[in-house]
Amino acid sequence: MIEIALDAMGGDNAPHDVVHGGIEAARISKGRYKVVLVGNEEAIHREVSRHFRTDDLPMSIVHADQAVDMNELPSMALKKKNSSIAVAIDLHKQGKVNAVVSAGNTGAVMATAIFGLKRVQNIRRPAIGSILPTENGRTLLLDAGANVDCRPQDLLEFGMMGSVVFSHLFGVEKPTIGLLSIGNEKSKGNEVTHKAHDLFSASPLNFAGNVEGGDILGGATDVVVCDGFVGNIVLKFAESLHGLFKSNLRRLVRKYLFSQIGAVLMKPTFDGIRKVFDYQEYGGAPLIGVQGVCIIAHGRSTPKAIKNAILAAHKMVIENVNKEISEKVGLLESPELVCGSHNSENSGEA
Amino acid sequence: MIEIALDAMGGDNAPHDVVHGGIEAARISKGRYKVVLVGNEEAIHREVSRHFRTDDLPMSIVHADQAVDMNELPSMALKKKNSSIAVAIDLHKQGKVNAVVSAGNTGAVMATAIFGLKRVQNIRRPAIGSILPTENGRTLLLDAGANVDCRPQDLLEFGMMGSVVFSHLFGVEKPTIGLLSIGNEKSKGNEVTHKAHDLFSASPLNFAGNVEGGDILGGATDVVVCDGFVGNIVLKFAESLHGLFKSNLRRLVRKYLFSQIGAVLMKPTFDGIRKVFDYQEYGGAPLIGVQGVCIIAHGRSTPKAIKNAILAAHKMVIENVNKEISEKVGLLESPELVCGSHNSENSGEA
Repeated sequence: MIEIALDAMGGDNAPHDVVHGGIEAARISKGRYKVVLVGNEEAIHREVSRHFRTDDLPMSIVHADQAVDMNELPSMALKKKNSSIAVAIDLHKQGKVNAVVSAGNTGAVMATAIFGLKRVQNIRRPAIGSILPTENGRTLLLDAGANVDCRPQDLLEFGMMGSVVFSHLFGVEKPTIGLLSIGNEKSKGNEVTHKAHDLFSASPLNFAGNVEGGDILGGATDVVVCDGFVGNIVLKFAESLHGLFKSNLRRLVRKYLFSQIGAVLMKPTFDGIRKVFDYQEYGGAPLIGVQGVCIIAHGRSTPKAIKNAILAAHKMVIENVNKEISEKVGLLESPELVCGSHNSENSGEA
Repeated sequence: MIEIALDAMGGDNAPHDVVHGGIEAARISKGRYKVVLVGNEEAIHREVSRHFRTDDLPMSIVHADQAVDMNELPSMALKKKNSSIAVAIDLHKQGKVNAVVSAGNTGAVMATAIFGLKRVQNIRRPAIGSILPTENGRTLLLDAGANVDCRPQDLLEFGMMGSVVFSHLFGVEKPTIGLLSIGNEKSKGNEVTHKAHDLFSASPLNFAGNVEGGDILGGATDVVVCDGFVGNIVLKFAESLHGLFKSNLRRLVRKYLFSQIGAVLMKPTFDGIRKVFDYQEYGGAPLIGVQGVCIIAHGRSTPKAIKNAILAAHKMVIENVNKEISEKVGLLESPELVCGSHNSENSGEA
């Protein structure tokens, strides 16, 4: 059976919400996967005991002495050989589990996974793919922070990897790919995007040209490619909106009496808006291009988000995403088709 | 008297809202400035005639044959020698007006101003400074799109220019400056930000270190410095939020009956939120580093935004911002103080 290691100690509300999410995922496993909770055994047992009927669930616990703090520097975190993150990645490296999910310190998870697991053959730079909610669905933005200085060829590889992952996660045959720049015309951009634009245009990927910052949340393309410097800044900017919206709403509602009544009546609307602006609803960010499956969930992950991240990890394992990535990277400079086709059939250009 | 040219033909709602804004500004001039409306004379007269008691206002009209379309490529716009943008910049170049305000095609205004007006002495790259609303006030982000590939020294100059402009526009003595990067620690960033961090640290500017994407709207620093590629992407991303919020709110309010009643009761709250997320409330973006004063207002500018842009232009003229910039650029590599001091006194480090 597929085994998925869950870092029980990582996340703002760990182990409480994380273990809760792991249990939720185990409940709907139907024999497809087992959840391996990694972390302080005692703390995990205590959390599990808060829930009913967990005895027969496909779950196990692997003890890890240490935990990485959410604000710890990755360089320091790497030294904790018995942290829940390190133990989970090690289990994966040894083939004892098929995937790792962590809502812990992003930098630490990324560094541990990149050092611990090897890169997919011929992939030069693993990337973090972040799933953003859009007006009409979702967009996979990558790289969201693994690589700050990128070459045009790196961006092309991100596009290919993003295409394959988006295709498998969301069942879209030929995901469209946008190159993040400062204007839709080919002439707009910096030196790297100019060259990347040429590489994308010559590739068999479903390239839709440049997209602008304002196109991302509009859902202009399925995949948005940028370097990790820009991706990280955009992602953190986006994540800060939820707090800004919430604090302003609260402040203004308090200020106006009628608004307090109005706010009660509008609850369903606000829940809807929250879903659009709140990123914790959306599983996690796959670390793409490493030999293995590693999903970095948001620090603020709810149990539902953890459950979704485990389901995404399971999907990436059974659909053998890495095999497809390693096959397609060789084709990037050949004339054959490299669209992330959902069923792995290279059926000719649409 | 100070004369401020207003491009009457530029903007999504031009000439209607623009002329309206110009009249509003003229009404509160109190002899401080005159508004010179530049554009199709007939169209401007028609707009002016919609308003009462405009005969004695400090306003005049300068005719311009052509107008630049909001989506026209800057390279094409530059060929229109009689466009309202070109005529306004030309009036400024000839010293017939002291400043230009335009809500027209940003790329065209920028290109016309940079080509038409010279750079401030010793400034290598003019930059667009964009004013973003934050949780506790506002932040000046620059460069918001004038320069895609920047050197560390360029970022340092942006910081100095931003400091001077912020100081004069908002009366803050020593504005704090943040360098936009992917982590608060000095070690985080790309090659350019690493070197820029060293330059800023050695400079007499009030440097607060790196800021992240999530810090911008939190108002972590008064000025946020980045290259024009990143700045443009962040700005357009931010601007797209207003539409996303509005369309989701409308969709969800329609869906839930009670929300329709709630929405009426919550109007003051929504007006408050709109102000936070809607950038048209905030005057315009000064093009900083050219010999002259040029404010690029948002295409969606309301009359109030146009009025505010004219007031900002007036302030930049009377406080002689460019003189201070040209003085301080020479000090950037010397040990003297280069903080954007509001009253131009270099009063020693705080």
